[in-house]
Amino acid sequence: MKHLLDARDLTRDEAVSLLDTAEAMAQTQSRQIKKLPALRGLTVVNLFFEDSTRTRISFEAAAKRLSADVINFSAKGSSVSKGESLKDTAQTLRAIGADAVVVRHSASGAPHRLAHAGWIDTPVVNAGDGTHQHPTQALLDAFTLRRHLSDGQGDLAGRHVVIVGDVLHSRVARSNVELLHTLGARVTLVAPPTLLPVGVEEWTCDTSFDLDATIAGDAAAGAPDAVMMLRVQRERMNGGFFPSELEYSRRYGLDSGRLARLESVSPHAIVMHPGPMNRGLEISAEAADSPRSTVVEQVSNGVSVRMAVLYTVLAGHAGTSQEELP
Amino acid sequence: MKHLLDARDLTRDEAVSLLDTAEAMAQTQSRQIKKLPALRGLTVVNLFFEDSTRTRISFEAAAKRLSADVINFSAKGSSVSKGESLKDTAQTLRAIGADAVVVRHSASGAPHRLAHAGWIDTPVVNAGDGTHQHPTQALLDAFTLRRHLSDGQGDLAGRHVVIVGDVLHSRVARSNVELLHTLGARVTLVAPPTLLPVGVEEWTCDTSFDLDATIAGDAAAGAPDAVMMLRVQRERMNGGFFPSELEYSRRYGLDSGRLARLESVSPHAIVMHPGPMNRGLEISAEAADSPRSTVVEQVSNGVSVRMAVLYTVLAGHAGTSQEELP
Amino acid sequence: MKHLLDARDLTRDEAVSLLDTAEAMAQTQSRQIKKLPALRGLTVVNLFFEDSTRTRISFEAAAKRLSADVINFSAKGSSVSKGESLKDTAQTLRAIGADAVVVRHSASGAPHRLAHAGWIDTPVVNAGDGTHQHPTQALLDAFTLRRHLSDGQGDLAGRHVVIVGDVLHSRVARSNVELLHTLGARVTLVAPPTLLPVGVEEWTCDTSFDLDATIAGDAAAGAPDAVMMLRVQRERMNGGFFPSELEYSRRYGLDSGRLARLESVSPHAIVMHPGPMNRGLEISAEAADSPRSTVVEQVSNGVSVRMAVLYTVLAGHAGTSQEELP
Repeated sequence: MKHLLDARDLTRDEAVSLLDTAEAMAQTQSRQIKKLPALRGLTVVNLFFEDSTRTRISFEAAAKRLSADVINFSAKGSSVSKGESLKDTAQTLRAIGADAVVVRHSASGAPHRLAHAGWIDTPVVNAGDGTHQHPTQALLDAFTLRRHLSDGQGDLAGRHVVIVGDVLHSRVARSNVELLHTLGARVTLVAPPTLLPVGVEEWTCDTSFDLDATIAGDAAAGAPDAVMMLRVQRERMNGGFFPSELEYSRRYGLDSGRLARLESVSPHAIVMHPGPMNRGLEISAEAADSPRSTVVEQVSNGVSVRMAVLYTVLAGHAGTSQEELP
Repeated sequence: MKHLLDARDLTRDEAVSLLDTAEAMAQTQSRQIKKLPALRGLTVVNLFFEDSTRTRISFEAAAKRLSADVINFSAKGSSVSKGESLKDTAQTLRAIGADAVVVRHSASGAPHRLAHAGWIDTPVVNAGDGTHQHPTQALLDAFTLRRHLSDGQGDLAGRHVVIVGDVLHSRVARSNVELLHTLGARVTLVAPPTLLPVGVEEWTCDTSFDLDATIAGDAAAGAPDAVMMLRVQRERMNGGFFPSELEYSRRYGLDSGRLARLESVSPHAIVMHPGPMNRGLEISAEAADSPRSTVVEQVSNGVSVRMAVLYTVLAGHAGTSQEELP
Repeated sequence: MKHLLDARDLTRDEAVSLLDTAEAMAQTQSRQIKKLPALRGLTVVNLFFEDSTRTRISFEAAAKRLSADVINFSAKGSSVSKGESLKDTAQTLRAIGADAVVVRHSASGAPHRLAHAGWIDTPVVNAGDGTHQHPTQALLDAFTLRRHLSDGQGDLAGRHVVIVGDVLHSRVARSNVELLHTLGARVTLVAPPTLLPVGVEEWTCDTSFDLDATIAGDAAAGAPDAVMMLRVQRERMNGGFFPSELEYSRRYGLDSGRLARLESVSPHAIVMHPGPMNRGLEISAEAADSPRSTVVEQVSNGVSVRMAVLYTVLAGHAGTSQEELP
């Protein structure tokens, strides 16, 4: 695997291999091995064209635990954000010594361009591009699901994951649908019609406007094994996508009533959220802090997954003896 | 010692032990041992909800000299600054791998909440909260006093420290009064009435409105062993607290005349300032640069003290063989 | 060599020695030796009073490849930018443990003041001050020229370098003219009259208003061995310095026609630019991406040169066994 750009690019075997590597990374952490020497002497550049402190420090922590050096390059607000200048920025970072570039960009497709335009020969990892993709988020969610639902091994065949909320603007939803499909899970998206994208009927998932019915398991997919709440972008609430926060919360929020019903139909189900949460809006404090919430664990798993991704793209790139992933 | 939140929490023995550890740290630096391996593999997160470049880089330098990794998290201006979100931010940092959190917050009490709400199990170090506490500043000031007035050992019994200026808005003054009292020193606060806080009469110190009389040593405490000038926040000058900068400087500034009188009554006295100085306002250039000024030394001592604090809270936390401090 | 402040301060032997050291640094990089232990345990502070992400990360990469710790101190917008406060900032950084200070400042002369005012005893490296000097840029340009024109050794005696564009506001032009003269090269500045500084007739170079004539080689200096295009500061275009971008590009831009003519008179000539480029303004995309363009290589050489500079000033400073450079 040279780059990680899009959840769709991953075959089932590649995805399982990444998750297995992440599991190995997580094991070292739990055994109090704080740093691995795997990437000593290599430099990872975080090239962030938009702010995302959480994602940035997750990659930074992952790289440092593998003993890489990290250089943070915040391009936000600079003139280097489009077209030819992306080329010059990329070539500058490569020339300065970047061995891998982690890129976050508000424009969908920017990481693909960086990887495939022939400008640089380093691995590129997509840390979120526009409303398009966020593949390491999908991998950490799959990793979390696997740890809870599949004994930490294999894939997610037959599992049912419900994703709720602003699918229209969510790269998390899109990446998750694709990766979960690859891993054999069934996905149901639940959202108001205005927050579903055009063409969603061609996605590899079901859709529903009714959260209560979906939680009750009356769809063909059966009761949910996991319910993933998406973050509401408050600034989009008043843009005509939905009448009000109160109404949204009432119809699509995970509150204690819905949590209780989920528990009754699916005692093993987990509650997920990519963070940061709007407590009281898409998720109640009770749901966020319940024992079945994996919100904090997802953050921790994010570091393990990003270690696995950086290790995989850089170990291959550096010409070490690691076998190429299939 | 699990956390360092408040100068009042420190017993005399704990404070002396921290100062002794800082002395050992300072000794390694003076012997050209630039880095100690004590915290290798551990991650210190600087969680700064308000800007403070000086304090941030002092903690960063301290952590790096102990071979820790440092992740800077500037939360300023983000939506994650209050209430429940502080919880989520804390849990995120812990999940990413923070072994200790150094927190700076504009709200008094935020570090206590972080430490004691049960959200995370990592040590928390208060790097300044509102107008409340700045315990590492108090420790570095005590460390500086001890080096000059007590042969670098023991406590400060019987010493007289005069703190001058905007006590009302100063977490430095509050923390210093408490720690110096614990260490046996006498403290006199000198300020205009509008810049003394309500309830100051219950603090463990004397107060005065007359800098010249206090320098002359006509109070019961005798002549000063040290005079600490507080930084004036210029934006507060026009808020009705004081008539003008000129008037403030004339009555409460340390100029060459007052410096000469201090020298005549107390030849060993030192002049302190937490920085950054307003030269010409609360302190003249002559006083700031005089041989008895410890301003630069305080910065250097700040690194030694913060090394001692990080070492103490993390060595205990990591379950190493270091004995628990009393 | 204690500091690096000004290209004029370098004797020919010092400059050649720095370039030889940079060559050694570049060789280690090409042999996949990613990190050298030379500056382990030392701390380099990047003190940037104005933004310059490219220069900052180049110094950061150079310091980290030599195993130094790096602390970034962005003083932009803070109150610590002038006069006495520069002193206090410098003393603070020294007290925190800076072993070398890399300084970027909008005021010409600030690095000299930092180095020579007696405030601190650490090496100071000028990373650009006002319109005055940018000596590491001059060194990396000389390094690039030497690699292409002199088999990577010795000086540049008899070579002809043409520098084109906004000389008036360019510290790059000024530093290059001085260092190239020291190394024996001939320099011709080409610019419209309004973009040449007062007193340019006393510089150690020729001047011309006619780019086509200079490329044709009808001056005494002969055909160019290298053409260096300066970045146009667009905000200065409307300040009366030049009529329009289109007119500037037509008369002073390096387009495909001029590139072809350069190739015909000087088949070995290289095209340089300090970056970031305004493609389509001072340089066409074709020229920027042509095989004779060294733009990306210059960035890479910048890291090697900055490694050499940091190594030279710190190895001498740390009292190691390295012989003093002549």
